[in-house]
Amino acid sequence: MIRLALDAMGSDKGPAATVAGAAQVSLRDDAPHIILVGDTAQIQSELARNPHAPERIRVVHAAEVVPMDASPRDALDALPDASMLVAARLVAAGEADVLVSAGNTGAVTLACARTFARLPGVGRAALGAVVPTEARHGARSDPFSLLLDAGLTLDPSADDLFAFALMGSAYAQRISRNPRPRVALLSNGAEPGKGPPAVVEAHARLAAYAALPGSPLDFIGNIEGMDIPRGTADVIVTGGFVGNIVLKMLEGVSDTVMRTARAAGERRWRYAAGLWLLSPAIRRVRQVTDWQQYGGVPILGFDHLCIKAHGRSTARAISNALKVATITARTDLVGGMRAALELR
Amino acid sequence: MIRLALDAMGSDKGPAATVAGAAQVSLRDDAPHIILVGDTAQIQSELARNPHAPERIRVVHAAEVVPMDASPRDALDALPDASMLVAARLVAAGEADVLVSAGNTGAVTLACARTFARLPGVGRAALGAVVPTEARHGARSDPFSLLLDAGLTLDPSADDLFAFALMGSAYAQRISRNPRPRVALLSNGAEPGKGPPAVVEAHARLAAYAALPGSPLDFIGNIEGMDIPRGTADVIVTGGFVGNIVLKMLEGVSDTVMRTARAAGERRWRYAAGLWLLSPAIRRVRQVTDWQQYGGVPILGFDHLCIKAHGRSTARAISNALKVATITARTDLVGGMRAALELR
Repeated sequence: MIRLALDAMGSDKGPAATVAGAAQVSLRDDAPHIILVGDTAQIQSELARNPHAPERIRVVHAAEVVPMDASPRDALDALPDASMLVAARLVAAGEADVLVSAGNTGAVTLACARTFARLPGVGRAALGAVVPTEARHGARSDPFSLLLDAGLTLDPSADDLFAFALMGSAYAQRISRNPRPRVALLSNGAEPGKGPPAVVEAHARLAAYAALPGSPLDFIGNIEGMDIPRGTADVIVTGGFVGNIVLKMLEGVSDTVMRTARAAGERRWRYAAGLWLLSPAIRRVRQVTDWQQYGGVPILGFDHLCIKAHGRSTARAISNALKVATITARTDLVGGMRAALELR
Repeated sequence: MIRLALDAMGSDKGPAATVAGAAQVSLRDDAPHIILVGDTAQIQSELARNPHAPERIRVVHAAEVVPMDASPRDALDALPDASMLVAARLVAAGEADVLVSAGNTGAVTLACARTFARLPGVGRAALGAVVPTEARHGARSDPFSLLLDAGLTLDPSADDLFAFALMGSAYAQRISRNPRPRVALLSNGAEPGKGPPAVVEAHARLAAYAALPGSPLDFIGNIEGMDIPRGTADVIVTGGFVGNIVLKMLEGVSDTVMRTARAAGERRWRYAAGLWLLSPAIRRVRQVTDWQQYGGVPILGFDHLCIKAHGRSTARAISNALKVATITARTDLVGGMRAALELR
């Protein structure tokens, strides 16, 4: 039985969204056991209003909550019984398999760093993210690539990039049901010598690792900016500074295109009619970037996994994050990452 | 009289495109004087077939040509009389005001570095590029921001970023007729403390410089990825690694959208009709990213200017690059950059 520790107080909407999401998941046939961590009174009152399977839900009290806009270090120092810390301690103690939180990203990461141990060979943690692509990925035909790091480690060393590649590969194998995900380094040219020194060195190490007998890694080398939307790679490895800019730029492009199209539509019947005809296709593209659909992204690098849901998560987004967490536990993602890191 | 030195042998199409572009420009009322540098016989035969103003065109012979795919260092070492080097020497000697080349980008930059002097306060050079934006910029309502560096200096120091900001501001003032261009650093958050150390330090220096009495700089702080397509800043300052990825990703997004739309159009009459109705708007967006339209981008950092045209330049692109070069000479861009760099 998979057991998940859900920080019930994280997310902008508080327990209303998290408890409703957990309640929905508890009613499924293959539901995991869910520990709701937070203010018992609030959680119980939300549970009372949502149909759920009581034998699959347990409540653990935590008196404090990290505010969404708090400084992570100050907040965790001041709030030792914050729901995310209590939930992380349940995971570290073996009472749950995976931590799920929609709280303050920096604070959740720091809670992991303070409560979990780093995997051998991992210097710094990475946050995964999904990028909508033209190509499909894995047996589930996922319309997105995994990109890491999305912002935790701004300026990674070659060792960090190497570890990100192995961890991202193990994650994509399990989440996209893709036995040999194509892993690439993001650079300013396809040649192995292109990029700043850390990228060039990581390229050499990944190529050597991929050539080992029985290597789990399919390293396809460097990709360039135009390969991101195309979906050339299943896993895109880069530093957190570049990753953050890439992800926010994609958001910005899609917002700008929608806004421009709408403005054009208001001005001319011709454009309005064109947009109406294309609207099913536009909706499909939007669904890919929809974080409610995807639910959660992994914090990778520790001996326990955390699935981070978006701060604006609805009940539906939370239930999807719980499903992702269940898959990672069932497929022993942490064991897979550990084995990949030990091979070298 | 403005005098331009045009590397007539650069570009994939050779003298056919460069000479035709120069010939077109020579017929305008306010035409500059153009020195065509390259193989005299080939240039004369192209001139013979293009109407032009002979009193405004001079040919200077250069026996050698740098191949488009050559290693820059090896090529310049082996070809001391390459057309781009001869043209750069004419500029350095004061016989021409601006160098224009559609040749191998790395080789053109190295030719500048070997022939020109760096401006005081500039450690490394930057290549400018234009990014299509939702917002309009300057008195000409240009539909693009200037981004630098586009790939010359992968990992700039705070000093480099500082110099890029001042040079980019001086360029945008002249090219977009924008007396106070809004200049921003690209980072992973709006706060001054966000980003790797070089970005944080450059932020502090630019803020202090903008606060000087009579400062020519309007520094609006950090922008994030979503601000790029929106056009929040007139000038976006970043390192060449990030700049290259951002620019190629924008290319890739527009290609992917067009390809996906076309595929959808083939499958369904509904999408085909919608695309037909929207086609004028789509064409307008494509024009912004059209390098033929814009013609050339600046190599900034030296005591002489080089306008780099695209390798695939047509005659029209070359004539636009010559116009951009003429504006920079008429408005004394190099003097403006020098004055801005000396203020601190």
